[in-house]
Amino acid sequence: MNDTASTLDRVVREIADEMRQRTDRGEVATYIPELARVDPGAFGLVVVDASGYVAAAGDCDTPFSIQSISKVFTLTLALGKVGDKLWERVGREPSGSPFNSIVQLERERGIPRNPFINAGAIAVTDCILSGHQPREALGEILRFMQFLADDDSITIDNAVAASEQRHGYRNSALANYMKSFGVLDNPVEFTLGVYFHHCAIAMSCRQLAMAGRFLAQFGANPSTGLAVVQRERARRINALMLTCGHYDGSGEFAYRVGLPGKSGVGGGIIANAPGKASIAVWAPGLDASGNSRLGQIALEALSKRLGWSIFGA
Amino acid sequence: MNDTASTLDRVVREIADEMRQRTDRGEVATYIPELARVDPGAFGLVVVDASGYVAAAGDCDTPFSIQSISKVFTLTLALGKVGDKLWERVGREPSGSPFNSIVQLERERGIPRNPFINAGAIAVTDCILSGHQPREALGEILRFMQFLADDDSITIDNAVAASEQRHGYRNSALANYMKSFGVLDNPVEFTLGVYFHHCAIAMSCRQLAMAGRFLAQFGANPSTGLAVVQRERARRINALMLTCGHYDGSGEFAYRVGLPGKSGVGGGIIANAPGKASIAVWAPGLDASGNSRLGQIALEALSKRLGWSIFGA
Amino acid sequence: MNDTASTLDRVVREIADEMRQRTDRGEVATYIPELARVDPGAFGLVVVDASGYVAAAGDCDTPFSIQSISKVFTLTLALGKVGDKLWERVGREPSGSPFNSIVQLERERGIPRNPFINAGAIAVTDCILSGHQPREALGEILRFMQFLADDDSITIDNAVAASEQRHGYRNSALANYMKSFGVLDNPVEFTLGVYFHHCAIAMSCRQLAMAGRFLAQFGANPSTGLAVVQRERARRINALMLTCGHYDGSGEFAYRVGLPGKSGVGGGIIANAPGKASIAVWAPGLDASGNSRLGQIALEALSKRLGWSIFGA
Amino acid sequence: MNDTASTLDRVVREIADEMRQRTDRGEVATYIPELARVDPGAFGLVVVDASGYVAAAGDCDTPFSIQSISKVFTLTLALGKVGDKLWERVGREPSGSPFNSIVQLERERGIPRNPFINAGAIAVTDCILSGHQPREALGEILRFMQFLADDDSITIDNAVAASEQRHGYRNSALANYMKSFGVLDNPVEFTLGVYFHHCAIAMSCRQLAMAGRFLAQFGANPSTGLAVVQRERARRINALMLTCGHYDGSGEFAYRVGLPGKSGVGGGIIANAPGKASIAVWAPGLDASGNSRLGQIALEALSKRLGWSIFGA
Repeated sequence: MNDTASTLDRVVREIADEMRQRTDRGEVATYIPELARVDPGAFGLVVVDASGYVAAAGDCDTPFSIQSISKVFTLTLALGKVGDKLWERVGREPSGSPFNSIVQLERERGIPRNPFINAGAIAVTDCILSGHQPREALGEILRFMQFLADDDSITIDNAVAASEQRHGYRNSALANYMKSFGVLDNPVEFTLGVYFHHCAIAMSCRQLAMAGRFLAQFGANPSTGLAVVQRERARRINALMLTCGHYDGSGEFAYRVGLPGKSGVGGGIIANAPGKASIAVWAPGLDASGNSRLGQIALEALSKRLGWSIFGA
Repeated sequence: MNDTASTLDRVVREIADEMRQRTDRGEVATYIPELARVDPGAFGLVVVDASGYVAAAGDCDTPFSIQSISKVFTLTLALGKVGDKLWERVGREPSGSPFNSIVQLERERGIPRNPFINAGAIAVTDCILSGHQPREALGEILRFMQFLADDDSITIDNAVAASEQRHGYRNSALANYMKSFGVLDNPVEFTLGVYFHHCAIAMSCRQLAMAGRFLAQFGANPSTGLAVVQRERARRINALMLTCGHYDGSGEFAYRVGLPGKSGVGGGIIANAPGKASIAVWAPGLDASGNSRLGQIALEALSKRLGWSIFGA
Repeated sequence: MNDTASTLDRVVREIADEMRQRTDRGEVATYIPELARVDPGAFGLVVVDASGYVAAAGDCDTPFSIQSISKVFTLTLALGKVGDKLWERVGREPSGSPFNSIVQLERERGIPRNPFINAGAIAVTDCILSGHQPREALGEILRFMQFLADDDSITIDNAVAASEQRHGYRNSALANYMKSFGVLDNPVEFTLGVYFHHCAIAMSCRQLAMAGRFLAQFGANPSTGLAVVQRERARRINALMLTCGHYDGSGEFAYRVGLPGKSGVGGGIIANAPGKASIAVWAPGLDASGNSRLGQIALEALSKRLGWSIFGA
Repeated sequence: MNDTASTLDRVVREIADEMRQRTDRGEVATYIPELARVDPGAFGLVVVDASGYVAAAGDCDTPFSIQSISKVFTLTLALGKVGDKLWERVGREPSGSPFNSIVQLERERGIPRNPFINAGAIAVTDCILSGHQPREALGEILRFMQFLADDDSITIDNAVAASEQRHGYRNSALANYMKSFGVLDNPVEFTLGVYFHHCAIAMSCRQLAMAGRFLAQFGANPSTGLAVVQRERARRINALMLTCGHYDGSGEFAYRVGLPGKSGVGGGIIANAPGKASIAVWAPGLDASGNSRLGQIALEALSKRLGWSIFGA
C-alpha cells in the first residue's frame, strides 16, 4: 500500500467511525414495508481510486436497494442505444420540485425536466424497452450493472419490486400522464414493470463504487481498459448528476460536497471525483428531500479532507 | 510567452474568429432602449490564467452592461458582511423557472430559491444595504468591483440604471412581494434603487475576467496575494454558479460547458476553470433562457479544446 | 296547447332555426374517433316546462354521447348512497383550471376541487362502486338514468366506452394520482371502467331534458310525483352546476346564460330554470374550454327571451 | 306593516339573536391594526325588500370598513365608464386561488381572473382613474356610494386607508406585476392610492343594504325609479358575485346560501335575492377563506327560512 492509499484508508475509516456515532440519522423511507424494515444504523463507505485501490469501511458488503441510483445506469444504457434522440423526450434542467411532482409535466406538455426525477427515469426506461419484452430489457439492464461492477452476483430483489409495483400509484400517474402526451412508446405497464424492477436492484457499496468507475475514469472501464462510454458522454452524465442528482436538494449537495452524485431512497449515494475516484456510501435515514442524511455528511467530509471538490480544492 | 500561454492565445483567437462568422446570434435584450441599441455583432473573449497571463480577442475592451453578472459580486460582498445568516432569506437550489418568476415566491413564502434569480439578488442587495443609505451601499459595491478588477475606471451607466428603474415593474413586484413576507429589511425603493444601479455597472471582458480571478484562485486576489474570500467560500460560490448561474438554462450550461459561470442579459458571461483560469465573454444576442447565445457556444469550445471541464477533461 | 306552451314552442323553434344558420360552430372533439365522426351540423333543443309540456326542435331525438353530463347524475346517485360523507373526498369550489388538470391535485393532496371536473367525477364514481363489481355499479347508474328519463331504451355506447378506455391515459393518471393519496377505495381499473362507461351513455336531448326534470322541480320526479332527492339537495346540485358545470368556462356561462348547467364534450348541455323548466341542447362543436359553442349561445338566447335567468330576469 | 314585512322582521331578529349566542366566530383580520381592533362580538343584519321595507337588527347602524365589498360598486362604475372594454383586462372566471394570489397572473400574462380578487379590482380601479387625478376618481366613487345608499354621510376612514397603504406590499406586488404586462394605464401609486381608499370606505349594514338595492331591483334605484345600470348588467354583476364573490369560498357560498354576494375582510357581506331583497350583514370574525364566518351562517339561515335561494326555493 502506497502513501496515497494509506491516507485514503485512514480518511475512509475515520469518517465511518464518526458517522457511526451520530444520532441525527434522518428517517428511513417507509412507503413500502421492505424499505421500512432496513436497519437505520447501517453505514457503509467505499472509495475506488484511479489506480484501482479500494478503501472500504462499515457495512460495505451489505446489499441494499439502489432505487434511484439505477437512473444513472439506465441513462447511460439508453444514451448508448438511442443517442441524443433521448433528449427529445426528456430535458436536462433541474426541476425545482420534489422527485415525484407532476405539476411540471402539465406545464411542459409531458416532457420531464431531467432523467433523474421519476418521470424522466420512466421515459428513459421506455427508451431502453423500445419494443422488446420487459424481461429482455430488464436482463440487459442487470447484465450492464454486473459488467460495470465486474460482479455477476448482482440481482434484483423481487420482493421490493413487487412491493413497488403494488404501491406505485404515483409513478403510474406519471407514466400515464406522459403516455397521454405521446412521450412513452411502450404499453405503460411494460415500462413501469421494468422501471420498478431496476429500482429494486440490490447492491453493496463495494459493488456500486465499482460500477461507477467509468464516470470517474473518463468513460473507461478500468477492469478491461475499454470505453463504456465516450469521454464526452461521461463528462455530461457527471454534469447531469451534479445539477439534478439529488432532486430538490441538488443545489445543496453541490454547495456542500462539490462532486457529481446520485442518491436513492434506499439510502445509497454514488459520487465521483473525476479522474480521482469512484465513491459509494450508504446510510438508510433520509432528509426532507429524500437524500441520505449521513451519506451526504460523509461525502462532504470526504471531499473536504481529500480536497476533491470540483469547484476548487 | 511560454508554450501554455501561446496555446491559450491561439485558442482564444480561433474561437473569436469562429464566432465572428456565425449568424445564429440570438436576439439582443429589448426591454430597455439602452440595451436594445447595442451592436448585435459585438464579440469579446478574455482569459486570465493562473500565472496571470491574459489572452484577449475581439471587443475585449468595450464596456457593456454587466446586468446579472453583478449578482456574483454582490453575493460575495453580502456573505462577507452577514455570513451564513444570508441563507435565512435566500435558498441554494435551482429554481426550475424563468429568472423573473414570482410563482416560486408564493409557494415558498417569499424566500427566493437562490441568489442568482432576480428575487434572490434583490434579497442579497437588501443585506448589503442593511440600514445604510443607497448611495453608500452602491459606493461599496462599485469599489469592490474596482478592487477585484484592479481598475478604478469602472463606473455605473446611469442612463441604463434610470431606464431599468423606469421599466422595473416586474422587479418591483418581486421586491414588494418579498417585503410582504418580511424578507426585505429596507424600504423597497432603497433596495431596488441599489439593485438597478449595480446591474447597470459597465465593464469590459478584460475587467470582468480580472474581477473573477478570486473564484478561479481559491479565493485569493492574485494582484495582492491576499484572500478576497476563504477557500471554502470561493468553492461554494462556484457551486452556486454551476447549479444556478444561467437561470432555467443552468443544466444545459453545465452539460455543454462544464464550468461555473454567470450570465447577464447584457450578453456577458463570466466563468472559471478552478485553479486554471478566469474567463469573460461577451456577445449581446440571447437565447430563449436569456443567456448569451454565442457566449455559451464560445465557452463550450474553450472548455473542450483546453480540457477544462470540471466533470472530467 | 295554452299560451305559455305556444310561446315556448315558438322560441324553441326560432332558436333552432337561428342556430342552423350559424357557421361559427367550434370544433368537434377529436380525442377518440367515435366522437370525431359526429355530424358537426347537428343541433337539437328540448325544453320540458313545469306542467310537463315538451317543446322540441332540431335533432331532438338523436342519441349522442352524454360524456360529462353524466357527472350530474352520478353525483346525485352518490349523494343518495353516502350522503355528505362524499365531501370528504371531493371539494365544492370552481377549479380555475382545465377539466383534466392534475396540478390542483398535487397542491391539495389528491382531493379534487369539485365533482364536475374529471378527477372529481372519478372520485364520485368510486363512491358509487364502493365494493361492488363494476358491472353492478354500471347497471345501477344506467337504471337511474332510465328511471329519471322515464325511458328504458337508454343504453351505453360500448364502442365509445372501449375507445375512451384505450385513450384514457390522462384520466388514468388522475385516478392513479388520487389513489396514491388514498382518495379512491376501489381498484383503479374498476373505478375507471365504470367512469368510462357512464360517460359513454348515449341519450337524446329529449331524454336528457326529461332526466333533468327533478333539478327544475325541487327534487321531485314529475312522472311519479315522488322525490328523487330532497328539495335542499336539488338546490345544492344546481348551485354546483352553476359554479362548476362548465369547467374553466363556468363563470362565462353564469354571466351569459344565468342558469345552472352541465356540459359534455359530446356537445350536449343540460340546464334548468328552477321551478320553470328542464332544458337540454346539443351541438357537437366545442369552444376552447370544451363546452358546446352553439349550445351556450342557444341557451343564452333562450334564457334572455323567456326571462329565465336566476340573477334577475 | 303588512304580513310579509312582519315575517321579515321576525326572521331578521331571530337570526340576529341566534348569531349573538354563537361562539364560533372565526378570527378578526389582523393585517392592519385598525381592523384588528374591531369588536369581534359585533353583529348587524339589514334587509331591504322590494317594497322598500327595511328590516334591521343588531349593530345595523355601526359603520365598518367595507373593504372588498367596494369591488362590486367600482365594477359597476367602471362598466358604466368603459363598458365591455373592461373585459379586455380582467376575466370573468373563478380563480381557484386565494384572494391575493399572484401565481395566476404569471400563468395568464397579467390578466386577473375576475374583478373581485384583489388584482382584478386594482385593474378595475385603474379603468375608473383613466387619466384623472386620484382625488377626483376617489370623489367619484364616494359620490356614487352616497347616491346609491341615498346617504351623503358616507365617508372614507383615512386611518384605515393610510394603514392599508403602509402595509400594502402584496397589493403593490400585484399592481406592479400587472403594470409590467401593460394591464394598468396609470402610475402604479395613483391606482393603488385610489384602491386603498375605496377599500377604506366605512358604511353600516343599513347603508350597504340600501346601496345594493339596484342589484336586487333589475338595475333600478328605487329611491328615484331611474336605472343605475341596465337590467342585463345588473343580472351579469349578480352572476359574477355568485361565481367569484367569496374568493376561494365562492362555491361554498353558492352551495349553502344560494344568493349572489360579495364579502370584505372587514366582516361585511352584501347579498341579494333578485326581485325580492337587498341584504347586508356584518360580523367581523373570518373563516380560512377570508369571509365573515357568522355572516355566511346568517345568510344561509335567511335564505333558507324565506325560501330565497336562486337555485330553487
